[in-house]
Amino acid sequence: MNSRAGSAADAAVDAKRFKRVLVANRGEIAVRIIRACRDLGIETVQVYSDADRDSLPVRLADRAVCIGPARSGESYLNARFIVSAALVHGADAIHPGYGFLSENAGFAALCEQEGVTFIGPSARVISLMGDKAMARRMADEAGVPTTPGSRGTVASAAEARAIAVELGYPVLLKAAAGGGGRGMRVVREPAELDLQFGDAAREAKAAFGDGSIYVEKFLSRVRHIEIQILSDGETVLHLGERDCSAQRRNQKLLEESPSPALGEALRAEIGAAAVRLCRHVGYRSAGTIECILDPETQRFYFMEMNTRVQVEHPVTECVTGIDIVKEQIRVAQGEALGIAQRDIEVRGHAIECRINAEDPARNFAPCPGTVHGFHAPGGPGVRVDSHLFSGYRIPPYYDSLLAKLIVWGRSRDEAIARMRRALGEMRVEGVTTTIPFHLSLLDDPHFVRGEIHTRFVEERLLETR
Amino acid sequence: MNSRAGSAADAAVDAKRFKRVLVANRGEIAVRIIRACRDLGIETVQVYSDADRDSLPVRLADRAVCIGPARSGESYLNARFIVSAALVHGADAIHPGYGFLSENAGFAALCEQEGVTFIGPSARVISLMGDKAMARRMADEAGVPTTPGSRGTVASAAEARAIAVELGYPVLLKAAAGGGGRGMRVVREPAELDLQFGDAAREAKAAFGDGSIYVEKFLSRVRHIEIQILSDGETVLHLGERDCSAQRRNQKLLEESPSPALGEALRAEIGAAAVRLCRHVGYRSAGTIECILDPETQRFYFMEMNTRVQVEHPVTECVTGIDIVKEQIRVAQGEALGIAQRDIEVRGHAIECRINAEDPARNFAPCPGTVHGFHAPGGPGVRVDSHLFSGYRIPPYYDSLLAKLIVWGRSRDEAIARMRRALGEMRVEGVTTTIPFHLSLLDDPHFVRGEIHTRFVEERLLETR
Repeated sequence: MNSRAGSAADAAVDAKRFKRVLVANRGEIAVRIIRACRDLGIETVQVYSDADRDSLPVRLADRAVCIGPARSGESYLNARFIVSAALVHGADAIHPGYGFLSENAGFAALCEQEGVTFIGPSARVISLMGDKAMARRMADEAGVPTTPGSRGTVASAAEARAIAVELGYPVLLKAAAGGGGRGMRVVREPAELDLQFGDAAREAKAAFGDGSIYVEKFLSRVRHIEIQILSDGETVLHLGERDCSAQRRNQKLLEESPSPALGEALRAEIGAAAVRLCRHVGYRSAGTIECILDPETQRFYFMEMNTRVQVEHPVTECVTGIDIVKEQIRVAQGEALGIAQRDIEVRGHAIECRINAEDPARNFAPCPGTVHGFHAPGGPGVRVDSHLFSGYRIPPYYDSLLAKLIVWGRSRDEAIARMRRALGEMRVEGVTTTIPFHLSLLDDPHFVRGEIHTRFVEERLLETR
Repeated sequence: MNSRAGSAADAAVDAKRFKRVLVANRGEIAVRIIRACRDLGIETVQVYSDADRDSLPVRLADRAVCIGPARSGESYLNARFIVSAALVHGADAIHPGYGFLSENAGFAALCEQEGVTFIGPSARVISLMGDKAMARRMADEAGVPTTPGSRGTVASAAEARAIAVELGYPVLLKAAAGGGGRGMRVVREPAELDLQFGDAAREAKAAFGDGSIYVEKFLSRVRHIEIQILSDGETVLHLGERDCSAQRRNQKLLEESPSPALGEALRAEIGAAAVRLCRHVGYRSAGTIECILDPETQRFYFMEMNTRVQVEHPVTECVTGIDIVKEQIRVAQGEALGIAQRDIEVRGHAIECRINAEDPARNFAPCPGTVHGFHAPGGPGVRVDSHLFSGYRIPPYYDSLLAKLIVWGRSRDEAIARMRRALGEMRVEGVTTTIPFHLSLLDDPHFVRGEIHTRFVEERLLETR
């Protein structure tokens, strides 16, 4: 396996300054990338669909180019169009953001082939870590604990059943190509398995074009802990963890760093494991190792790797002072990080709330519309990452994230108080948002004590219904 | 002198939690105080003049009360009305912000007398340090260097002339009760002295009701360095320095921390001197020791003390992580700081630009009007302290500060790049602002190298005219 995994890191390219970067995304992450480029003195080309013609990234970028109709498949997922736009507009590199083509190995390969730098890891590594069963195998090889489960995918429901007996119920069926909870099923007893296996495989096939399934022991009452990685191919750093246990249907709602559930020893152990895995696969770029943590046993298990920048990266930026997107671009330019692990110091506590155009009272149904007025909160410890402006029409075609409100405090308590204050100041007029949901979560005594798990929000929503 | 100076600190009051604080100010600092109170779980009462009826602090506070017409003398400077409002609305304390009544010993005494806590030092200390000649004497006593000059005020132009001969020309005539450059004159040769003395005394009398003048050696090509102090009466901390050399007519335009002109040894020496002076006068609250630094000789001289929170406090908050306004309120509640000097670590670099409604092309003439659209910049390392909102009508009666844009970076270069980016993102539609001035200053090679002095901006403006 080692040879396939690539024991050496992706070859470092010769350092060169990008003159111009194409932003192959939309919304807040496009704005985030433009900001990083501007801080580095790099020009930007923003691609947009018809639906995003009047959007903040289009206004902010040095150039903007329409690449197709609203439907993502014909615009933000159109790899050939995007690479052509980069070539036509003289962009040296493409930043894919998150979602869309960001973890598409074919897109990364096409960029490589056309001589445009893909700002992310190599196509080889995306492909390796994008296969969740393969990624588990890599973790095994690197000595990183994984949840007990099948070694690789299973060929049939019968094979899954045999493994489930070994593991003990409940078990989790997961799509090898999956993400976002699609193609995932909890099976609580043997009688359910055949039906659920068929459903999961069909859903995975429809969503990802690949119906491969693997089996894991299902652990409940666990926390979602993830480690931010930065690597230039030589130096592999971890920037501490984020705790993303506040989820609903596997969608993160609120993230924080550091985790209230980790002690120093375990923090160092998980960080070292994440670095080991990235070294093993020859990772070069920013990335995230996602784990589950069983707070009872204080054991952690590798879940998957995200080979891109994540929505919640700002909490790590706030506590470490390191601009992850800037470093990701610098590394893609072939520069060395120039930071050592001992230089990384986590200071204080940061929390991010995802402000979505969704109605918590109607099962978080998306609420597109026109933002008649937008007023961002401010003052000490408050950061806003958003593409909103007064008069912005939220298109109904994409995800419902409107803004990320991030606060920093010297302590978790200070951060919580500031988040309450900042949420109270924020005005998004004309659309329903998740602001009231967050205010209620921040008042929950379990949350305040830092005692939540990945099913906590769903259980709480059921209770208060 | 020691007995008058008060060798013991103002007696610490018994710790009690404020239930409600009255905000005796307007604009961005009122918003700042409301934010600090909210972070502490304290209710706020915002006073306002007729001209500020529709203002952000009025919208944000828990209660708001009109205290009179637009003219400050009949509203924000009306001490009796403000104290009455505090008593009527059950406010335990009054935060004066900066300007207006913040350094008015009579107001602090009235608060003390009426049983309302004045959030600031005692009336005794305000009075002591508010007399600039007396403050110089205190510095002498505490072994803090002062510029060579008269010991206390001078009785006549003749006395000033005698001292000027001793000091050597040029000399500076300064109003003992002064501030903001009023009652201040540079005298370059003996023939000018009598006329300038009369002018300065008359201006001081008109502006401050006190025409007392003192004489100092005039040092040119110096930097303005100030030390942030926090004291609970027992523990006196310094939070490092701010460099405010970018001034025009003694009005600060841009401030940064740390100063590019200080080495570690000198930084520690100035900090220790500032702490010594505050201990000597028994200072309790947040405050600032202003010095001038001669970069050639690396010598510093005490200039004056501001016994209140300053406009530029956020740069210190950004590099230390300490919320100065919160600590100021906590100390006023009688709480101990609970921080030691060794816990104070300056991380990275912060810069603040004051965004004023002024036209740099017309000699910085105020430009009131209606802000048709306001869009705050955001993203990593950006903080906005402002009372603006879309549709806000800037009243013509008060100062022209619209917003403070503060950025943080790991290095000064990163901070400068972020400030450029953030200024470029900011939209204040409908009024002329100083944004273009700041963009031009940030591009100046002298500024980028950190090589400026307090006359730099004025000299540069003359050159580019």
